[in-house]
Amino acid sequence: MPKALQPHPDRALPAGPARELARRIHASTKDLPLLCLHGHVDATLFASDEPFGDPAELLVVPDHYVTRMLISQGVSPDRLGLPRRDGTATAEPREVWREFCSHWHLFAGTPSRYWLEHEFAEVLGLSVHPSAETADLLYDEIAARLAQPEFRPRALLDAFNIELLSTTDAATDDLAPHAKIAADLPGRIVPTLRPDAVVHVDRPGWSDLITLLGERAGTDTTSYAGYLEALRQRRQTFIAAGARATDHGHFSAAATPLSDAEAERIYADALHGRTTPEDAAAFAGNLLFQMAAMSAEDGLVMQLHPGVLRDHHPGIHATYGPDQGHDIPVATEFTQSLRPVLERFGHAEGFRMVLFTVDETAYSRELAPLAGVYPSVRLGAPWWFLDSPDGMRRFRELVTETAGFYNTSGFVDDTRAFLSIPARHDLARRVDAGYLADLVVQHRLDEDDAFQVAQDLAYNLARTTYLS
Amino acid sequence: MPKALQPHPDRALPAGPARELARRIHASTKDLPLLCLHGHVDATLFASDEPFGDPAELLVVPDHYVTRMLISQGVSPDRLGLPRRDGTATAEPREVWREFCSHWHLFAGTPSRYWLEHEFAEVLGLSVHPSAETADLLYDEIAARLAQPEFRPRALLDAFNIELLSTTDAATDDLAPHAKIAADLPGRIVPTLRPDAVVHVDRPGWSDLITLLGERAGTDTTSYAGYLEALRQRRQTFIAAGARATDHGHFSAAATPLSDAEAERIYADALHGRTTPEDAAAFAGNLLFQMAAMSAEDGLVMQLHPGVLRDHHPGIHATYGPDQGHDIPVATEFTQSLRPVLERFGHAEGFRMVLFTVDETAYSRELAPLAGVYPSVRLGAPWWFLDSPDGMRRFRELVTETAGFYNTSGFVDDTRAFLSIPARHDLARRVDAGYLADLVVQHRLDEDDAFQVAQDLAYNLARTTYLS
Amino acid sequence: MPKALQPHPDRALPAGPARELARRIHASTKDLPLLCLHGHVDATLFASDEPFGDPAELLVVPDHYVTRMLISQGVSPDRLGLPRRDGTATAEPREVWREFCSHWHLFAGTPSRYWLEHEFAEVLGLSVHPSAETADLLYDEIAARLAQPEFRPRALLDAFNIELLSTTDAATDDLAPHAKIAADLPGRIVPTLRPDAVVHVDRPGWSDLITLLGERAGTDTTSYAGYLEALRQRRQTFIAAGARATDHGHFSAAATPLSDAEAERIYADALHGRTTPEDAAAFAGNLLFQMAAMSAEDGLVMQLHPGVLRDHHPGIHATYGPDQGHDIPVATEFTQSLRPVLERFGHAEGFRMVLFTVDETAYSRELAPLAGVYPSVRLGAPWWFLDSPDGMRRFRELVTETAGFYNTSGFVDDTRAFLSIPARHDLARRVDAGYLADLVVQHRLDEDDAFQVAQDLAYNLARTTYLS
Repeated sequence: MPKALQPHPDRALPAGPARELARRIHASTKDLPLLCLHGHVDATLFASDEPFGDPAELLVVPDHYVTRMLISQGVSPDRLGLPRRDGTATAEPREVWREFCSHWHLFAGTPSRYWLEHEFAEVLGLSVHPSAETADLLYDEIAARLAQPEFRPRALLDAFNIELLSTTDAATDDLAPHAKIAADLPGRIVPTLRPDAVVHVDRPGWSDLITLLGERAGTDTTSYAGYLEALRQRRQTFIAAGARATDHGHFSAAATPLSDAEAERIYADALHGRTTPEDAAAFAGNLLFQMAAMSAEDGLVMQLHPGVLRDHHPGIHATYGPDQGHDIPVATEFTQSLRPVLERFGHAEGFRMVLFTVDETAYSRELAPLAGVYPSVRLGAPWWFLDSPDGMRRFRELVTETAGFYNTSGFVDDTRAFLSIPARHDLARRVDAGYLADLVVQHRLDEDDAFQVAQDLAYNLARTTYLS
Repeated sequence: MPKALQPHPDRALPAGPARELARRIHASTKDLPLLCLHGHVDATLFASDEPFGDPAELLVVPDHYVTRMLISQGVSPDRLGLPRRDGTATAEPREVWREFCSHWHLFAGTPSRYWLEHEFAEVLGLSVHPSAETADLLYDEIAARLAQPEFRPRALLDAFNIELLSTTDAATDDLAPHAKIAADLPGRIVPTLRPDAVVHVDRPGWSDLITLLGERAGTDTTSYAGYLEALRQRRQTFIAAGARATDHGHFSAAATPLSDAEAERIYADALHGRTTPEDAAAFAGNLLFQMAAMSAEDGLVMQLHPGVLRDHHPGIHATYGPDQGHDIPVATEFTQSLRPVLERFGHAEGFRMVLFTVDETAYSRELAPLAGVYPSVRLGAPWWFLDSPDGMRRFRELVTETAGFYNTSGFVDDTRAFLSIPARHDLARRVDAGYLADLVVQHRLDEDDAFQVAQDLAYNLARTTYLS
Repeated sequence: MPKALQPHPDRALPAGPARELARRIHASTKDLPLLCLHGHVDATLFASDEPFGDPAELLVVPDHYVTRMLISQGVSPDRLGLPRRDGTATAEPREVWREFCSHWHLFAGTPSRYWLEHEFAEVLGLSVHPSAETADLLYDEIAARLAQPEFRPRALLDAFNIELLSTTDAATDDLAPHAKIAADLPGRIVPTLRPDAVVHVDRPGWSDLITLLGERAGTDTTSYAGYLEALRQRRQTFIAAGARATDHGHFSAAATPLSDAEAERIYADALHGRTTPEDAAAFAGNLLFQMAAMSAEDGLVMQLHPGVLRDHHPGIHATYGPDQGHDIPVATEFTQSLRPVLERFGHAEGFRMVLFTVDETAYSRELAPLAGVYPSVRLGAPWWFLDSPDGMRRFRELVTETAGFYNTSGFVDDTRAFLSIPARHDLARRVDAGYLADLVVQHRLDEDDAFQVAQDLAYNLARTTYLS
């Protein structure tokens, strides 16, 4: 008989003397609306509002947390349905789903397990655990659910109580889906400008993108000055479409400005197909500074996500493309790297920078001290590998004593997996409830303050960080 | 009605099965005398024994933990009364105090909140929480207290049960206040030699300081040899005034000796106003080695506080001067940096080095392994941003298993805020009581050993580290 | 009256609501056989099966955890009986033992204390704590035990329930003791190939070892190709003797291949006594890559232990030789360092790499992400300074959420101290039981899963990592 799936009402709350209070704190935040101000859900989902595809396509193939764990235990990417760049057929959806279900035990102790159990039980209404035996049953049950109108993307947007959701969009995006959504759901789904592809001059296809950037912006991008102007124009277009923020994924947090002449030289070289790794890195760092300058002018919140070596395995990248779970963090320096930006804009009225890391060593050493003094800096929520019960707990323990609660950004779900959004917010609210309750029972925080802080962490801080 | 201020008797003790024992351990250490062997209280306070100024001047303006948090949330330094270098007037004390009180919620979860609650309730006898509404009431109450004789510095020294207090004094200091104090309170307040200003040849005004150093020491400092001799002389003067230690705040822990010829060259260049960042760093590293050599001779304990980028924001530094909360840590290497010193003096009889860090990654990786084998090395107490309940707890968890308890220095309060000293020692004693009680209830330490270790951490280790 | 020695049945289990379950989980794993697949016990112990020597020789002198702690508190290496290279006599065994016993309090809170209490009480049947007063009594009691046949090495191998034990053996070892043991105890004691001495061309005596390597392998090692062939031959000899793995202790994890021509040049230079630190480091990194290539062919598991600066104090090394507790960790990079190996072999069928660290910062940042996606990578158990209750707990907390349980290696005891092996496995099983029980009471893991995972961590994962 298959094992029943019953997420416990007290899951991820402390087990000891703080539990009862943690329950009450969680009860006070669990029904607050969701502000999803940094994520990667595709806008076309809501523009078209088509039913979701099959269970594998929805829950396995695009979730790199899930596929990387299965790959790590010897399941080949092909068996998981990862689309090959050359279009070669890979596994059928039902086969993919069976692989996933038969390896369910691998997820013990991981956040994927918490999120998936929540999705299965509370969103999809499933009642048994995945296993080799239950795979087909679950596949059919999920497929049946997805065919119903209440499981369409816009219906779920309401069911999930999502007040506002930001997507992530390239600087060259035409924002057409957003225009369609805005007509139907005004102010509910907004874009975020992610200019990474146009600021890294050494990436294949960069110069074609620059041409497209010029077209979108209606400016001449054959010069560095024109390129900066195109970026300024595009920011205005994003702002008009409701954007609140930009997002920057760089290898390093270095943000040192170049002279116009030096930047122009690198830019011109790159347009002629000549670039060096050093020039490319210097240009990317310069652009972080320039984008900060633009943020200080136009008010878009600047989000920085540094410190990941993308596509660690060239073979996987060549066969399956980017974002296939083979991105590995590196040690990341912030104190010296961000000094030029903070010297110039750290105390500037209206500039707001949100810093994320996958290098936890920076929490207490650099990030909390920076956020704890610069009015412009907020610490982003625990990101990627750290968006987990112990990871979120460590974040609070390492950051709060120096930066307090009010220099953190509020939770961001940062996901492509739309169905996991409520689970992610709920888990974060549980972990924060537990942390606050533990402080109260240790008499390090008053109970009334704990309830207020919980509201702020769950909802208000996301507003004040991104929307004020 | 204002919220009552009532620090809980069990604050910062564990909430679970260890609480009762933690209470008993804390009870056994809470009344031990305070040894304050590393701090920054101004000696003139005790020399003159004048009443303290107003509440803002006493509790807000000089406390960079407090001002940095307020600044981080948009309160301008001027509104906090930070004195401008140009003498321009800033806010009135009562206005500063109101800013502080109306932002009291920002300190939730921070050590500043614990310290201030302790000071307000147990030192100043206040009975309501700070808030916009209570600001004036509290201001007046505190001002009234400060006018009473029992709140004069020397009276508080007794009330606080401070057995010995070390100040921090430049190599060029004439130690006049210490002479005056020594006559009235023999052996109670002693200086600590901090030679930073004379070993960093690239700091503005260095050569003037060198002239003054020569005058103070009665030696000719126009040569490197004379400069070293001046430092030796000054150490003797400090020792005669009761000093137990030197203190060194360097960007890096590098302590590599230079040849006399090379050191002489850099020194001569610097006197002629020519220096490079590389030369300055090499000279500072050389001086760490030379000071270790002198410590091995004269027995002054050598304290090293590396790894902070001072004055991160040049604009703040230009307007308000140093030590305004804009000092940010960096990753710090110890293993290779200290090798030259430890190769030479690590096993030397009579040499004692106390290592501090604001980079917690070094605790288990480098500092505990070094302190756990070199007889000369002790690990300093958690420092600066890490002098907090969770920070002190992590220190014990990351250090004890490799270095044990007896290679740590005992608590140091490291503060300019005289009124916070009892609160800081009390918080450390609470955290240690909780850590020890947790070990006992997990049957990892015997109860009788826990009581002995608690005494040692609270009092005896500071004696054996600095006074034996 | 001396204090009774009574290790508590619940030692190192959680104290709160998880204790009862932790007890039951521990009860389910504590009698599983021990797989000791990475350790440093000397094979000759079992070849000769002679009685152990005196208590000091068995329990103090060779245990660098113990001697480093005593040295750190001022006991000279001579007083601890550390053999001097020049053969000068040092302390008598009974004197050494007295030094150890009179400093017993130093070990409070350290893993040495847990291990030794376990050995004293459960292996040696002692009933009082070490102290200055009990030193002679304990010495005589232990000496009497060691004279009994049930305390001979092979008898203890059975008593300890050791199923399989791997030793560590140089590439130039003749494996004679293993041949003798294999005849008597087939398949019970196997060698591990540790080629460090022949891959670091800058170590004194390297070229003599290369000659010996050639003799052992029956190949001509005057060329780089012949040298590689010798290593291949030796691997086959080790495999024939039952070896499952190689072990590599490098300063850095860098594993970048050199061209054959460049490797040949460095090799030839080194044979002529000419080498540079850069060449030596490049050659060592190249050899890591070459050994990975050989592992991918012959199936030996590749264990990497990087990031330790050996013999930090040259004077101690000169007088007493290596491995005297003066090895200090350094920050260690894995993501970029291992990329060449993982690009080539990370997804290769049959390649298995086990990564160890003494830099905990790499756990969540680099090691868990690597192990959580590459099928070839497993995370080794907490190593050296981290093989302790809090260290093992942090390992699980920092690794599990990204890598899960099944990308870790299972426990390895990694010790020269044969008598401590049961204590080390037991402590690891206790810590894992506590971690799992805590997850269950926080409703983050189902109880049935916890029991299964506990079995896997205690026994099955060591099998699947090293023996499958």
